[in-house]
Amino acid sequence: MRYDVAIIGSGPAGLEAAITLKIRKKNIILFGKKDSSAKVRLAEKIDNYLGIPAVSGSELADRMLDHAKRMGVEINDTKVSMIYPYGEYFALQCGEEMIESSSVILCAGVAPAKTIPGETDYLGRGVSYCATCDAAIYKEKKTIVVSYSKDYEEEALFLRKYASEVIYIPMYDATGLSLENITVQAAKPLEIKGRMKANTLVTDSGELSFDGLFVLRDQIAPSSLVPGLETEGSAVKCERNMSTNIPGLFAAGDITGEPFQLVKAAGEGLTAAFSAVKYLASKG
Amino acid sequence: MRYDVAIIGSGPAGLEAAITLKIRKKNIILFGKKDSSAKVRLAEKIDNYLGIPAVSGSELADRMLDHAKRMGVEINDTKVSMIYPYGEYFALQCGEEMIESSSVILCAGVAPAKTIPGETDYLGRGVSYCATCDAAIYKEKKTIVVSYSKDYEEEALFLRKYASEVIYIPMYDATGLSLENITVQAAKPLEIKGRMKANTLVTDSGELSFDGLFVLRDQIAPSSLVPGLETEGSAVKCERNMSTNIPGLFAAGDITGEPFQLVKAAGEGLTAAFSAVKYLASKG
Repeated sequence: MRYDVAIIGSGPAGLEAAITLKIRKKNIILFGKKDSSAKVRLAEKIDNYLGIPAVSGSELADRMLDHAKRMGVEINDTKVSMIYPYGEYFALQCGEEMIESSSVILCAGVAPAKTIPGETDYLGRGVSYCATCDAAIYKEKKTIVVSYSKDYEEEALFLRKYASEVIYIPMYDATGLSLENITVQAAKPLEIKGRMKANTLVTDSGELSFDGLFVLRDQIAPSSLVPGLETEGSAVKCERNMSTNIPGLFAAGDITGEPFQLVKAAGEGLTAAFSAVKYLASKG
Repeated sequence: MRYDVAIIGSGPAGLEAAITLKIRKKNIILFGKKDSSAKVRLAEKIDNYLGIPAVSGSELADRMLDHAKRMGVEINDTKVSMIYPYGEYFALQCGEEMIESSSVILCAGVAPAKTIPGETDYLGRGVSYCATCDAAIYKEKKTIVVSYSKDYEEEALFLRKYASEVIYIPMYDATGLSLENITVQAAKPLEIKGRMKANTLVTDSGELSFDGLFVLRDQIAPSSLVPGLETEGSAVKCERNMSTNIPGLFAAGDITGEPFQLVKAAGEGLTAAFSAVKYLASKG
């Protein structure tokens, strides 16, 4: 089965795109956090979302989710680690599964300010963004997990079922953390090195060798998520109709650059949805 | 006194720009209808304004106006008939008054599909968009008013105090209309002709000669409203930050083109406001 539109992100841009496409009776799949974006939820008070004065981020997130739910939108919280543009359609790596979609709207939020030097160069050559996808490749091998969130501890434990060794480097406060049969190590990654394939992680407390390195964070740099996607600085480069340099791929919200504001994100989500509908119609 | 930002239009784009600029403590003036845009108010049911599900246009307009009012936004319902970009600042013709503003955000709604042939060519040379502004010029002269709304009957009566003759051509259902000392005539304007100045209105029921012709409609074509403003079709040409070809002039909402949707308009209003703030800062 091929979806009409895959939406990546459940912040205001993704939710607005989803309800707009539901109204247009498109067959969609929405990937994101079930409680919307953390950035929305954690805002103390929002004064500039026209029509809903003086609201807390958490209440506004609830209202947006409630609206989406009423329109029949469901949120799939599987992480999308790679999007392959195949011309006629897109293939999305979702955990261990691949799904297909005729078009994609990227609303994954503001891109990470910086990656580890060497990270994007060695992606697919010893470096991976998804332990659940690639664990089997590293059977009886030595692996390192650089993790930016507590949420990825599960993924490291899953990896350990295959890999003979997992060194887990938490990039968050993980005082007292212990993971079964895993070495939890405090260190600051400085560079990923290697030859044809990456094999060494340079840290502030020495070098670590590996067969496979996993970098697990919520946001993946757009150009790593979609090979060939054009960016301007860290933002995805878009036209006013939210199209990108890849036909059928649209972007909306913080991922397209400033201003990082909810109503701007929602507006772009709508525009991207309209453009996706037009794109689908043009393909017949 | 010079305003920081003059906003033209009180639909979602104008109101969102206004609250955003209030938060940034800018000195603004907002021109528009006191009950927001007719287009919003007349919508039967709106399903895609994220966070406010299944709402009537009239209720949504009330919520937006209430939000703006809470933030201290006031609506001035004087019609702006001309905006002159003077480089350092803008001069706005508002009824009989001129006001000054350092920047402008144009949110005047979707531009009229078509003008009367010859209308824009003779603007300022026998053709005017504002009877209250230019009435005095036509003292003891022969005038014609082509009016697209009942709201302009007052303006025709005002004009009659100066002009020796006023022929009023209503472009709306005006069955039984009579205006004191004014000839109300049913006719369809086909072309405005003349030499250096316009002097003849060709209609489907013959030619009418005049000294001054007034075309009164709610929406003025953007390029007539602001001399030198670049358009694409009937829409104002914008960059992604909502800047136009005129420095300090930004646009947002339906006037920038499709999709003609509320949340898209609000999002652009926010972006235009942020860009205006940046522009003001750059001028020091």
